[in-house]
Amino acid sequence: MIRGLDETHRADLRSWVASAERADTDFPIQNLPLGCVRAPGGAVEPVVAIGDAVLHLLAARDLLRPDGELASALEACRSVGALNPLLALGHGAMRRLRAATSALLRDDTREGAHARARASTLLSPMTEVGLLLPVHVGDYTDFYASIDHATNVGRMFRPDNPLLPNYKWVPIGYHGRASSIVPSGTTIQRPAGQTRDDPNAAPAVGPSRRLDYELEVGAVVGRGNALGAPIPIGSAESHVAGLCLVNDWSARDIQTWEYQPLGPFLAKSFATTMSPWLVTLEALSPFRTAPAARAPGDPSPLGYLADDEDATAGSWELELEVWIVTQRMRASGLPAFRVSRARFDRMYWTFAQMVAHHTSNGCNLRPGDLLASGTVSGPGAESRGSLLERTWRGTEPLALPTGETRRFLEDGDEVVMRGVCERAGFRRIGFGECRGIVSAG
Amino acid sequence: MIRGLDETHRADLRSWVASAERADTDFPIQNLPLGCVRAPGGAVEPVVAIGDAVLHLLAARDLLRPDGELASALEACRSVGALNPLLALGHGAMRRLRAATSALLRDDTREGAHARARASTLLSPMTEVGLLLPVHVGDYTDFYASIDHATNVGRMFRPDNPLLPNYKWVPIGYHGRASSIVPSGTTIQRPAGQTRDDPNAAPAVGPSRRLDYELEVGAVVGRGNALGAPIPIGSAESHVAGLCLVNDWSARDIQTWEYQPLGPFLAKSFATTMSPWLVTLEALSPFRTAPAARAPGDPSPLGYLADDEDATAGSWELELEVWIVTQRMRASGLPAFRVSRARFDRMYWTFAQMVAHHTSNGCNLRPGDLLASGTVSGPGAESRGSLLERTWRGTEPLALPTGETRRFLEDGDEVVMRGVCERAGFRRIGFGECRGIVSAG
Repeated sequence: MIRGLDETHRADLRSWVASAERADTDFPIQNLPLGCVRAPGGAVEPVVAIGDAVLHLLAARDLLRPDGELASALEACRSVGALNPLLALGHGAMRRLRAATSALLRDDTREGAHARARASTLLSPMTEVGLLLPVHVGDYTDFYASIDHATNVGRMFRPDNPLLPNYKWVPIGYHGRASSIVPSGTTIQRPAGQTRDDPNAAPAVGPSRRLDYELEVGAVVGRGNALGAPIPIGSAESHVAGLCLVNDWSARDIQTWEYQPLGPFLAKSFATTMSPWLVTLEALSPFRTAPAARAPGDPSPLGYLADDEDATAGSWELELEVWIVTQRMRASGLPAFRVSRARFDRMYWTFAQMVAHHTSNGCNLRPGDLLASGTVSGPGAESRGSLLERTWRGTEPLALPTGETRRFLEDGDEVVMRGVCERAGFRRIGFGECRGIVSAG
Repeated sequence: MIRGLDETHRADLRSWVASAERADTDFPIQNLPLGCVRAPGGAVEPVVAIGDAVLHLLAARDLLRPDGELASALEACRSVGALNPLLALGHGAMRRLRAATSALLRDDTREGAHARARASTLLSPMTEVGLLLPVHVGDYTDFYASIDHATNVGRMFRPDNPLLPNYKWVPIGYHGRASSIVPSGTTIQRPAGQTRDDPNAAPAVGPSRRLDYELEVGAVVGRGNALGAPIPIGSAESHVAGLCLVNDWSARDIQTWEYQPLGPFLAKSFATTMSPWLVTLEALSPFRTAPAARAPGDPSPLGYLADDEDATAGSWELELEVWIVTQRMRASGLPAFRVSRARFDRMYWTFAQMVAHHTSNGCNLRPGDLLASGTVSGPGAESRGSLLERTWRGTEPLALPTGETRRFLEDGDEVVMRGVCERAGFRRIGFGECRGIVSAG
């Protein structure tokens, strides 16, 4: 018995949008992720992805017939240029919008027939609209929820004692930089900074030579909480609107020199890429699963982090991939090369636990805040979610189809992240792409 | 020769606002700090402090005669509820506004005579308006710029090697939480969290028993920079609109357990108090001085952090104080007790260096962003800017006039921070108060 399933999840629903019926689309009618586009006149508009197109929610108002609360929120999305006002309404409103959107895009409903007749005004080809960040991120928090990632990184620096004593008790996280979060497709300028290879020499200043990606999943906050009012674990997910992909670009050489004693700063703050589509928790219902990584013998989560439902269904069957295209691959017409592949349900901490922990001191979350999972790595070498791990600090270079090798990213390298949920009996849904190409600094 | 001085800094200027002529006011006509208040109808309005009153800038428009750019920005402050649009204009506009405001408040100008006749509509008593945060803080960065503070904290944990190797090269900083920044006067709820005193036991969860303050100075960003475009040290100060006081409340027991390997998180994110008045760099011109703490034998700042003018005049003669009032002191009618007193020009890194460093990787600053200095401590015991240092981790309790002692803050304790600039030949200016009282968690 999977909670949260309704008519919109039925595998046999069909859409009148032909591209949504292709087997390989990320955006069948069962997905309906939310995003924002720049409309021709310059205004920002809330949209839903369907196949190769976007549905303009405001243009479809008369067919969607949003109630007053939803209608005002959709208008407000246009004025603030992001989905924040919609997400702030919480899951009741998100479910109502999903139901109406699903009915409008189905090939067997009255609303669908009306919409199909107006397809040219309601839809735009996805390639012809500028996909923006889906939300204004007020605060960005980056966690460290993969025990495989924490263990890998720990092994490089402390071989005898890779995992710190707090790891299995505390969902470790830190504050990231919100201003430099950019939408998928934005070019990433190689950052400059201080590095020091020789502990007896002065530090050098120049472009990072150890530029890396980090494969992460982001949870976007829906309803916020008041300052001083922690969110109990049992209702933590009601504050998460949905998920997206995040590339937390990292300059390892800058990080090594700067991070003591207050953590990563300039090694991360030059850019973080966010995928344009918010895949709602409603869309993810069919793919719920238990978080798998807590081993026998590990401490039980402390009370404020413990919840039976979270322990049995607090994660998702979500497979993540990182692909690389180098300059030479592009010039040779070679396809992207898959560098790693990891499962999200290997994470040690769930988003519900991250929300409960984050607010346990009274800290307030606001609609649109981004909580990223930290690098998603698995136990095997091919499931390591950063080049630092994948090439073991550069000691095991990756061999690419062109004969090139990679220890870290080079100028012209493009990194593409993808995420897909699949389960027997349900239509496969995807996250779209989180993409960025590295340019010289 | 002090740069940036003009008519508005003359010590002999007099205001027709009588309270601005009292010798002990923080807000003589030479100061004119900017803030935001909640007007009776509920709207937020930009104001200037003068003596015991606030001047409503929008109500005084016809006398201030702002040019088009300034007029639009003042209107925009009302719509966004903060000073960000004004600060974004940069120092040219800030100087023009200061000159007009000064003329309007002088007792020897035509504008002043007109304004005085309308005093009842232009001014409100400061005690009768709700002082808000002056800006919407998009991102909050906390530095670690006091070498005395870094050395004190280092000595407690690493007696043989208190200062880490990067300290004299890197203006260490980390990202803080923006959502929980609160205006002076907001009650601070004691945070709960995980702590572990006994390394062989499971962590405990409960209210922090080591709640502390941190005395800091905040720089508020004026003009921003584009992502990917570092700000050179020579123009770094042109991106700082002004300074305020910051109390970076800290839960030391939570911090000790959580901070490895990614830095402080919940130990800080429950609340940060900001004083309501933005003291502009224009007002601070007379008090410029050299940052004093870089010792002979220390490495020279790297090129991107080195600037002659910054080295000779990149700090200010700013004296800071922390006062405490306990519940019992209040009940006994005792005045506040001064706990510490520190000079800002002891800091190792200047705000110009912090801005240049922060953006050296291409990170973008936005108008209203807050860069806090980190705890301001000096070399002596009485100049330590946190209780952690002042009581040396609780081993040297503070004796209060009531016979009470303090290792860390107790419920009902109020912490008040003050800052004052003084120099012969100039009128003394103050920062107002940064105040917060601790309530049970």
